[in-house]
Amino acid sequence: MVSPDPRMPHGYSLPLSPHGTASLVPAPPWHYVGDFLVIEYWADPDAVAAVLPEGLEPFGEDPGRAAALFVDWQSCSEGGGELADPVRSQYREFFIVVNAMLDGELVTSCPYIWVDQPFALMRGWIQGFPKKLGSVWLTRTFGLECRADPGLAPGATFAGTLAAGDRRLAQGSVTLEQLSERGPTHNDPRLVNVRHFPRLAAGHHGSPAVHELVGGVSRDRAISAIWEGSATLELFDAPNEEHAALAPVRVGRGFRFSFAYTVDDLETLRDLV
Amino acid sequence: MVSPDPRMPHGYSLPLSPHGTASLVPAPPWHYVGDFLVIEYWADPDAVAAVLPEGLEPFGEDPGRAAALFVDWQSCSEGGGELADPVRSQYREFFIVVNAMLDGELVTSCPYIWVDQPFALMRGWIQGFPKKLGSVWLTRTFGLECRADPGLAPGATFAGTLAAGDRRLAQGSVTLEQLSERGPTHNDPRLVNVRHFPRLAAGHHGSPAVHELVGGVSRDRAISAIWEGSATLELFDAPNEEHAALAPVRVGRGFRFSFAYTVDDLETLRDLV
Amino acid sequence: MVSPDPRMPHGYSLPLSPHGTASLVPAPPWHYVGDFLVIEYWADPDAVAAVLPEGLEPFGEDPGRAAALFVDWQSCSEGGGELADPVRSQYREFFIVVNAMLDGELVTSCPYIWVDQPFALMRGWIQGFPKKLGSVWLTRTFGLECRADPGLAPGATFAGTLAAGDRRLAQGSVTLEQLSERGPTHNDPRLVNVRHFPRLAAGHHGSPAVHELVGGVSRDRAISAIWEGSATLELFDAPNEEHAALAPVRVGRGFRFSFAYTVDDLETLRDLV
Amino acid sequence: MVSPDPRMPHGYSLPLSPHGTASLVPAPPWHYVGDFLVIEYWADPDAVAAVLPEGLEPFGEDPGRAAALFVDWQSCSEGGGELADPVRSQYREFFIVVNAMLDGELVTSCPYIWVDQPFALMRGWIQGFPKKLGSVWLTRTFGLECRADPGLAPGATFAGTLAAGDRRLAQGSVTLEQLSERGPTHNDPRLVNVRHFPRLAAGHHGSPAVHELVGGVSRDRAISAIWEGSATLELFDAPNEEHAALAPVRVGRGFRFSFAYTVDDLETLRDLV
Repeated sequence: MVSPDPRMPHGYSLPLSPHGTASLVPAPPWHYVGDFLVIEYWADPDAVAAVLPEGLEPFGEDPGRAAALFVDWQSCSEGGGELADPVRSQYREFFIVVNAMLDGELVTSCPYIWVDQPFALMRGWIQGFPKKLGSVWLTRTFGLECRADPGLAPGATFAGTLAAGDRRLAQGSVTLEQLSERGPTHNDPRLVNVRHFPRLAAGHHGSPAVHELVGGVSRDRAISAIWEGSATLELFDAPNEEHAALAPVRVGRGFRFSFAYTVDDLETLRDLV
Repeated sequence: MVSPDPRMPHGYSLPLSPHGTASLVPAPPWHYVGDFLVIEYWADPDAVAAVLPEGLEPFGEDPGRAAALFVDWQSCSEGGGELADPVRSQYREFFIVVNAMLDGELVTSCPYIWVDQPFALMRGWIQGFPKKLGSVWLTRTFGLECRADPGLAPGATFAGTLAAGDRRLAQGSVTLEQLSERGPTHNDPRLVNVRHFPRLAAGHHGSPAVHELVGGVSRDRAISAIWEGSATLELFDAPNEEHAALAPVRVGRGFRFSFAYTVDDLETLRDLV
Repeated sequence: MVSPDPRMPHGYSLPLSPHGTASLVPAPPWHYVGDFLVIEYWADPDAVAAVLPEGLEPFGEDPGRAAALFVDWQSCSEGGGELADPVRSQYREFFIVVNAMLDGELVTSCPYIWVDQPFALMRGWIQGFPKKLGSVWLTRTFGLECRADPGLAPGATFAGTLAAGDRRLAQGSVTLEQLSERGPTHNDPRLVNVRHFPRLAAGHHGSPAVHELVGGVSRDRAISAIWEGSATLELFDAPNEEHAALAPVRVGRGFRFSFAYTVDDLETLRDLV
Repeated sequence: MVSPDPRMPHGYSLPLSPHGTASLVPAPPWHYVGDFLVIEYWADPDAVAAVLPEGLEPFGEDPGRAAALFVDWQSCSEGGGELADPVRSQYREFFIVVNAMLDGELVTSCPYIWVDQPFALMRGWIQGFPKKLGSVWLTRTFGLECRADPGLAPGATFAGTLAAGDRRLAQGSVTLEQLSERGPTHNDPRLVNVRHFPRLAAGHHGSPAVHELVGGVSRDRAISAIWEGSATLELFDAPNEEHAALAPVRVGRGFRFSFAYTVDDLETLRDLV
C-alpha cells in the first residue's frame, strides 16, 4: 500500500500530489450513464481471429460476430463533483467488440476504442481498454416533437461518427423500427481485454511491465427501454490504424438505449508476461 | 438576387461554390432543439445601460434585469442532413441578455454570447448575435436513476460553464425544486440585437458595411415542462472580454427545460449607419 | 462613423462593448508573419472557370493554373498584445488560389480556405476570404541538425494536412532541392475575392447585404530566402465541400519560405449586388 | 518477450494489433526537437518538499529551487513517418521541475506537466512524467524583422500560457537581454520521476501495479545558442489541480533556446511498491 502515506505525494493515478486531488483519474468507484448506439455485425472471421489476445479462441459457432458501439457518456467518481464541472464528466466513445471463447465461455473482447477526453483515455488503459483519443459524435434526442429532433419513434435515424488523426475512421446509423424484446446480443457476453503498460528500459521494450488478461466487473446496472431497427456501418482505413480490417461483411440489427453502471473492480484472469 | 445564377458560384453564405453546397452556413430555415439552463439575475444598472445599443433605453422599472443562459443545441437546415453527420449539427452556447425598452416595448438584448462550433458562430453574426468561440459544458440527464445522472427531481443540480481564450469566463448552476408555473421571464421579451459587418477600406474602419438594429423572428416553437429552483452565477474577468461588468449583484431563480424553434426571418428595425 | 461614440457600445467588430475591447476581430492594422508551403499545380480548366466570381474571366493562356498553400501564422493588431497571449495570435491555414483575368489584368482568386482559429475565420470574411474552420498542420524546422527536424537542406520534406468536419480534406508536401531564384508564380498576382454577408429577412435570402468584388491591399512585406523542390498534392471529396473538383491534374514545383506583411486596407472593385 | 509473436496482436503500446502499427505510442527510439522557454524561480520550500516522491530529499542548500518550462515540440519515432503527418508529431508542453537530493546527488523531479496531444500524454506516463492534457501556447519567432515577430534580440518578449479543464493554470514570459553564457541551471540536473500505473482490482486500489523511482536517460543531444533575460511567472489555483502551491516566491532569470534529443532508455532506481 503506497498512497495512504499522507506525508508523501499520493492519489490513485498520476500526478500524485500532497493532497491527492490532482490525479488525472480519480479513485474508483466510477459511475457512468450514457446513450448507446449498438450495431451488430459480422467481420471477416480471419480478421477477428487476428485481434484475439493470447488466451482467447475464435467463437467457432459464429466466428465473425462483432458489434460497433457509439456512446455518449457522463461519468463521475464517488463524490460526484465532476457533474458540477462537466468538462471533467462527459465524453463520447466509439468501440468495436468481437466474440471469442475463453475456457469454454463465450466472451467479448475490445480490440479498438476511441474517446474524446483524456480522463477517459487513461481510465480505459487502467481497465484494459486500448483507448486512443478521437472525435466522436452521435445524433441526440431531446424529447420534443420538432424538425431538429429525430425522436424515439419508427423511422427516426440516429448516426454516429468517429475521427482520429484528422481522418474519418468510422460511421454508422440505426433507423428505429420498434421497441426491442431481446436487445443486442453481440456485445452481451463479459468483456475480456488486455491490460498492458510498456517498459522503456533499453533491451526490454518487448517486455511490458503489465500484460495480463482481465475480465470486466461492474455493478448497479440500469437500462432504459431498447429501440431496435435497421443499421449501417462503415470503417475507413488510415495510417496508424488497423480497425478497418474488421470492416463489416454483413450488418445486422441496430439498437438505441440508455445504460448506467458502476465500476470499481477488475478480475485478472491470466498473467501474460 | 445573386445566388440563383447557376453559372456562377452560389450559396447562402461563403464559400460560394458551383453547386452551392459548400457554404459554412446553409440557407434558412434553421431548425433548433436544445436543453436550457436559464439563470435570472440582476446586474449593476449602469453596466446594463452601457451595453445597450443605439435605439434601446434602460428598463426603468427594473433597470438591472438580466439572465444568463447555457444551452445544449442540436440544429439542422431544411434537408436535415446535419442530423446524420452530427459534427455539423450540435453545439453548446452561453449568453447573457439584458432587458431594455424599444419605443415603449420591453425587449431583451444580447451583448455577449459564445458558441463552440463555427457554423453557429457565423449563423449568429447573420442574425445579430455577437458570437465568439468558446468551450461550453452543461450537466446532462439521461433519464436513468443512477449515480452519474442528477435526474429531473427536487435536489438535482445542473451546472454550466464557459471558457474562451483558455480562461474560465462564467459558471452557474440550477438546483431543481419543483415544476415551474410561470417559467423564466427575464429572457422572455423579444430579442433586439445589432447586426454588424465591418468595412476594411482605409479611412472607413469606423463605418461598418452593415450596422442595424434587428428584431428576432421565430416560428414552430415547442417547449417541455419547466423545472425551477435556486441558482448560482459567476462571471470572471479576462483580457479581450468585458462581460464581467455584468456580473450579478443579485441572483434570482433558475430554470431547466427543453425548447425548439425554427428561424428563417429577421426584422430590421432601424438602420444605424 | 459609428464606433467613436464613447457613450455607445463600440469596437471594430462584434461584440461591440463599452470600452471597445471585446471585439472578436480587433481594428486594423493586422500584422502577420508565417511559414509558407506553396504547391503550384494545374486543375481541370472547367473546374477553375466554375469557381470564378462574377467579373473574373478564365486565364486563357494557362486556364487551369492554381496553387495550394499551407501557412503557419502568427499575427497581432497594432498594440501587439496578442503576442503576449499567443492563443489569440497563432493559427494555421490552408487555401487554394486559381488564376483569372480581371479587365485584362492577371489576378488570383481564392475559392476555398480553412483556418484553425475563430479570430482568423472572421477576419477572413471581412477581407473577402471564404474561410471555414479546420485543422491544419505543417512540418516545422527548428534549426538544429537532428532526427526530428527535416532541416532546410536538399532532400528535406515538409508536409501539410487539412481536415474539417472530422474528415481529411487535403494533404501535400514539398521536398527541398535548392534555393529558388524565381520563387512561386501561380500565387503571385493580386488577390481578388468576393466579400459577402447574407441577409436573413424572409424573401431576401438570395439578396446578400454585402456582395462585392474586392482587391487585396497590403504593405510592409518581408520575405526570407525561398527553397524550391518537388511537390505532391491531394484533395479529398467530402460532404459540405466542393474543393475536390479542383484536384490536381498536374503538380508543379513546391516552395518553402517565411513571409510577413501588414493589412489595413481593401479595395472594392465592383459592387455585385 | 511478448510482442514479437507475429501470430498475436502486438506492438509497443495499446492498442496491440495484427501488424503492430496501431499503437498510440510507437516503439522507441523517440526523437525530439523543440523551442524552450525556461523560467528559473523559487517556490515555498515546504511546498517543494511536499511534492518530492519517496527516496528524494529536499535540496538543503537552496530548498525552494524550481523551474517552469514551456516547450513547443516536434517528435517522431525511428521511421520519421510522423513528420509527414504532423498531427501525430507536434505538441506543446508546460511543466514544473523542483530540485532535490537522491543519495547525495542533486537531481530534478517533475511533479506536474501538461501536454496538448494524446500520444505525448501516454509517452509521458511510460517515462514517469505525470502528464495531463492541456492547452499550451508559446510566442514564436520566424526570423523576419516585422511587427508580428518579436525577433531574437534584446527587448523581445516571449510568453507561454497553460490552460486545462477550461481554466488558465499558468502564464509566464521571458524578455531577452543577451546571449547567455551559463544557460539555465535549475532544470539542469538529471530528471528523477515516479513511474506509476494503478491497479483496479477491488481491495487493491492503493497498491499500484507499477510504482518505481526512475531516472531519465537520453542521447544525441543538440542545443542552439541560448538567450537570457528577465522573466515573469504566475500559477493559478483550480479544482483538481495542486500546482499553485508551487507558485513563485521569487522569480529569477528566463531563457530561450532550441534543444533536441533522443530517448530510448530509462533507468529504474528503486521499486517503491
